Formats: sequence, C-alpha cells, structure tokens
Amino acid sequence: MQETTKNSCIRRLERIEGQVRGLARMIEDGRYCIDIVTQVTAVRAALRRVEQEVLRDHIGHCVREAMESEDSRKQDRTIQELMDVLVRSQS
Amino acid sequence: MQETTKNSCIRRLERIEGQVRGLARMIEDGRYCIDIVTQVTAVRAALRRVEQEVLRDHIGHCVREAMESEDSRKQDRTIQELMDVLVRSQS
Amino acid sequence: MQETTKNSCIRRLERIEGQVRGLARMIEDGRYCIDIVTQVTAVRAALRRVEQEVLRDHIGHCVREAMESEDSRKQDRTIQELMDVLVRSQS
Amino acid sequence: MQETTKNSCIRRLERIEGQVRGLARMIEDGRYCIDIVTQVTAVRAALRRVEQEVLRDHIGHCVREAMESEDSRKQDRTIQELMDVLVRSQS
Repeated sequence: MQETTKNSCIRRLERIEGQVRGLARMIEDGRYCIDIVTQVTAVRAALRRVEQEVLRDHIGHCVREAMESEDSRKQDRTIQELMDVLVRSQS
Repeated sequence: MQETTKNSCIRRLERIEGQVRGLARMIEDGRYCIDIVTQVTAVRAALRRVEQEVLRDHIGHCVREAMESEDSRKQDRTIQELMDVLVRSQS
Repeated sequence: MQETTKNSCIRRLERIEGQVRGLARMIEDGRYCIDIVTQVTAVRAALRRVEQEVLRDHIGHCVREAMESEDSRKQDRTIQELMDVLVRSQS
Repeated sequence: MQETTKNSCIRRLERIEGQVRGLARMIEDGRYCIDIVTQVTAVRAALRRVEQEVLRDHIGHCVREAMESEDSRKQDRTIQELMDVLVRSQS
C-alpha cells in the first residue's frame, strides 16, 4: 500500500477506535437506543471508507501490477481474489 | 435497554475496539490489502450484530411500550423513528 | 396491508418489471458494463423502497396490533419475526 | 462482455422479471408482509448476482485490457470508474 493511503487509513482507524469507545460509553450511560443505532451506523460507514481507500489502492497498484505482468495465472488469481473480497464485503 | 443487552453490547464493543486496533497494526505492518479488507468486513459485521441486539431490545421494549400506551402520537413517532433508523442503517 | 400501500407498491413493481426488461435489453445491446452495474444498483434501490414501504405498513399495523393485544406470545412472535426479516434484508 | 456472461445474465434477468411479477401478485392477494419482504430480499439478492457476474467479466476483460494498454490515463479512468461503481453499489 502507498504511504499516503497507509497514513490516511491509520488516522481513520484511530478516530474509529475513539468512536467505538464512545459507543460503549453511550450504552453505559443508558442513552436512547435510536441514538445508539444511529451512531453504530456512522461507525460502520467510517469503516466502509477505510475499506474503499484500501480497495482503491489495491486496484490502482496490486491489480494494475498483476495485469501488467505477463503471468496469466497471476492475473486470474488477482481477479478471483478481488471478486471474492468484493462479494464478502457487500453483505 | 435491558441490563443483559447492555452488558452483551459492551463486551462486543470491547472486542471490536481491539479488532480496530489490530487493523491499524495490520496496515502499519504492510499486510496484504485483501487480508485487510477481509478484516474490515469482519469488524463491520461485528458492529452489525451490536446494532441488531440494540434494535431487538428497542423493539421488544421501547416499541412495545409505545404500542401499549394509549397515546397515538407517541405510537406514530415511535414507528417513524424506527423506520428512519432502519432506512439509515441499510446503507 | 393498507390499500394505499398496496397500490403504491404494485405501481413501483410495475416500473421495476420494466427496468428489469430494460436491463436485459442493455445486455443484449452490448452496453458498457459500468452502465449496466449502475442500472442494476438503481433497480436494487427501487426494490429497497418497496421493502421499506411494506415494513412501514407492517410496523404501523401488524406490529402495532400485536402490541395492543394482551397476548404476550403473539407479541414475542411478532418481534422475533420482524427482527429475523430485518437481519435477512440487511445482506 | 463475453457471450457466456451475457447469456447467463439474460437468463437470470428473465427469472427476476418473473419474480417481480410474482411479488405484485403476492401483494394483490394480500399475502403476509413478512413473506413479501422475504421475497423482495430474495429478488435483491438475485440482482446482486447479476451485478457480480457483470463485474467479474468487467474486471476480467475491460480492466485487464486497460491495464495491459500503455495508456496511463485510460488506466486511471478505468480504476476511477470501477471504484465509483463499487461505492454506489454498496448502498
């Protein structure tokens, strides 16, 4: 992964870690369920953005590199593994 | 929220906090993108289960209570707010 | 289900049926993959709106009715079945 | 798109068209909301599989071809457009 992607993802994950701790506190404090679910949704969306940054970097570098190689088995494996992770990430 | 739901959700969130920290470490260690995306997907699924527990408790208690009340404005508001949070949580 | 919900959902489904036929035509015509995926996403979103209308009606009527009943087994079953359908619909 | 992908997607879409008509009938017949939502979920999942087939073909052919070209603007545009459609399709 590119250094800029790494740094950006790590900063996002640090914020997400704080949000997860904040969620535990909301529950301890007996906050209203609807506010908690709204906040869980926000944290999932933030994780989605990490996922998208990693995928963009992966397609822009690992997939590109595999495609530029002459190794057609490597190309097939790269496409297979990208599709598998996309399918898993959709649920 | 019921005490058992609270405790279960807080325990889940503590594990999720550890998973988020683990994710930052995976990125620092230069782990393969596909493994990172797979793990982000797992954390999102774990948050989904927190959300589902909170919603189940909410429907079983807050919604039930609103419906048992004679206050039809409260009933309408409760349904509206449940639908809104469901719609938001689907994305 | 309320008559207005029924009519609105049936009209939506008629439009969706046309969109699905249009999708098959796009594929036959050899349209660009990205345009096809964009259109599949639009049809899935349209189905989501049908689902939300049905759920809103269900919560506003079936769930409300179950909660107003004195039958606590019926209440539990209604909540269980609502949660089950929500969990399934999230994937 | 490859002929086999085209044919497979068109067959899937024909089945989906029938499922959408079936859904309208379920609503007209006053079937239980939960059964309707379950069926809408099944149709959305079937559309998801069409989307995945198209994407797999797209990555295996259009993206591969762009990557094999020496045209770096074409490569960038292909990655950008793939990421955009993935982001849209996640909601």
